[in-house]
Amino acid sequence: MRAVVLRDGRLEVADVAEPTPGPGQVLLEPVACGICGSDLHCARHARAFTEAARLTGMTIFDFDPDRDLVMGHEFSARVLEFGADGPPQDGPAAGVRPGDLVVAHPVVRAADGFRSVGYSNDHPGAYSERVVVQSAGLVPIPEGTDPVHAALTEPLAVGLHAVNESSAVQAGGAIVLGCGPVGLAVIAALKLQGVGRIVASDFSPVRRRFAGELGADVVVDPRDVPPVRAWRALGGRGPAVLFDAVGVPGMLRDVMRMAPSRSEVVVVGLCMEPDTIEPTVAISRQLTVRFVLGGSAQEFADSLAGIAAGRVPVGSLVTGEVDLAGTADAFDTLANPEEHVKIVVKPNG
Amino acid sequence: MRAVVLRDGRLEVADVAEPTPGPGQVLLEPVACGICGSDLHCARHARAFTEAARLTGMTIFDFDPDRDLVMGHEFSARVLEFGADGPPQDGPAAGVRPGDLVVAHPVVRAADGFRSVGYSNDHPGAYSERVVVQSAGLVPIPEGTDPVHAALTEPLAVGLHAVNESSAVQAGGAIVLGCGPVGLAVIAALKLQGVGRIVASDFSPVRRRFAGELGADVVVDPRDVPPVRAWRALGGRGPAVLFDAVGVPGMLRDVMRMAPSRSEVVVVGLCMEPDTIEPTVAISRQLTVRFVLGGSAQEFADSLAGIAAGRVPVGSLVTGEVDLAGTADAFDTLANPEEHVKIVVKPNG
Repeated sequence: MRAVVLRDGRLEVADVAEPTPGPGQVLLEPVACGICGSDLHCARHARAFTEAARLTGMTIFDFDPDRDLVMGHEFSARVLEFGADGPPQDGPAAGVRPGDLVVAHPVVRAADGFRSVGYSNDHPGAYSERVVVQSAGLVPIPEGTDPVHAALTEPLAVGLHAVNESSAVQAGGAIVLGCGPVGLAVIAALKLQGVGRIVASDFSPVRRRFAGELGADVVVDPRDVPPVRAWRALGGRGPAVLFDAVGVPGMLRDVMRMAPSRSEVVVVGLCMEPDTIEPTVAISRQLTVRFVLGGSAQEFADSLAGIAAGRVPVGSLVTGEVDLAGTADAFDTLANPEEHVKIVVKPNG
Repeated sequence: MRAVVLRDGRLEVADVAEPTPGPGQVLLEPVACGICGSDLHCARHARAFTEAARLTGMTIFDFDPDRDLVMGHEFSARVLEFGADGPPQDGPAAGVRPGDLVVAHPVVRAADGFRSVGYSNDHPGAYSERVVVQSAGLVPIPEGTDPVHAALTEPLAVGLHAVNESSAVQAGGAIVLGCGPVGLAVIAALKLQGVGRIVASDFSPVRRRFAGELGADVVVDPRDVPPVRAWRALGGRGPAVLFDAVGVPGMLRDVMRMAPSRSEVVVVGLCMEPDTIEPTVAISRQLTVRFVLGGSAQEFADSLAGIAAGRVPVGSLVTGEVDLAGTADAFDTLANPEEHVKIVVKPNG
């Protein structure tokens, strides 16, 4: 089958071995697969990316950078064929049959544990004509929902998990720093959970516009208006909940510097390098810092339900569609935050 | 009056101006004042200490290192004389009269806000024959309680605050990394709050002995036994609550590396320098990090009550007593963790 392969630091379309579903697994035909920020990072710095992840125990990104890698983990798909034991008999995936449209947790079970589909040399992701995942992780896409929109389930679930781990609902407000795909997912999830008084901050005017469309109450350029001041102007009092969705070295230090006393900082942007903080700042303000990752099966299902019910305007976030041949160019294009939020790859046209 | 003055990087006994209590203030005669780790740090690196604190907003340590400084903030004392408006009429300090033994919050109110007694050029601390504080912050020492033991109220309140901010009570266990005065206060506070399954860790055999005397269930040298393994052997399951009571650069990174998934790290040791962490470790384990400081008025009162009721074996922690003339030598002695835990200064003999 054809797939976009990361090979010697370049993305190219190549023929790769067709995956076959084992027991408890399912073969899918991807309809749409979003390009994730982690994929961009991995494509540019595969060796540093996987080595940093391995050294620090982040085994979901553990692969051999000298071998081919097929990425792609944010996808919707059509069910082709179940493994020898057939479709799942219980759980959310019960009743799913070949031909159904689904979203899927991007994991497979190997002999020695789970592997990430999309960050494993042996388990190609969805920038590919076919993909195999565990069938227990399928969630059917409700009738009438655009499968391109459903492909945003995974990133929205990341935002929903961050919000659910935070005190934003109890606090009745939040400050979202960084309006790339992760920050926008946090804003969408805050709206989904009924949180008002949302301040969003980004240098990019395009990203600020998307933040407003997703429902941020006030959107600022932090060079002009300090985000905490904007939140105070909205009536925010006392400690704040701040989401760091930037994920570059130095950002956590900056968030700690701006955080009011006893605030909660939720780190959802993934900084792959060691980072320097000022403990005296954090201590004198008695900050709580929550590092969050991924989403639960429930959050995955809730995200899809929110999309299907039209409660998240994901349509506006998909700013481009490409086929396998256009994927490498799309990666280059996404380096410029002024042009795109989410480009989806349609591996089967 | 006589006081131990930090002057040009040296501690010496000198005559300083007698403080006078203003309205809402009280003049005290210190009975016993514990030497705190922050005092040791300040005595050696006064300029770096206050500059780091000022740059990062930790205003409680804001003083002029080129002027004289009288430290000392962990003290018990005898009431000498109230300011013009007399003794407090309400609150925990109501009923306190001259001659009474008290502990006191080490703060005074200046025209533009509160100042730390012991870290202010204008408000000498208790390494001195007399000290002035706000009278509302007095807490009477119960009849029959040794005022030397009561002098440990402030450090115990710091430990109690750290425990109260943590999930240790709900988790039913904790790992305390570092058994200097702060770590030992955390262990004592865990016992006070009824937490079982306490693992303590320190390189020093003397400190490990004190940790055991205070009630840690298992005490390890981390070079021989990983603290988390010791906690598992005690029946600890799932996420842990880990107190970082070490406060040196690199320690937070190490705690994150040893923490089980979804653990809570409570940073109570004060690292004054910028520190480097590995966000990928924290994110892949979904850690929560709480930075804590000080203690509330209630925690202060609860700590004294615990000491007075004999529920905290503080007596064994006081490993030395000196007068003002012996204070400089005591600072040198405390640099060696094998000899002492807490030396108290008795400024009035």
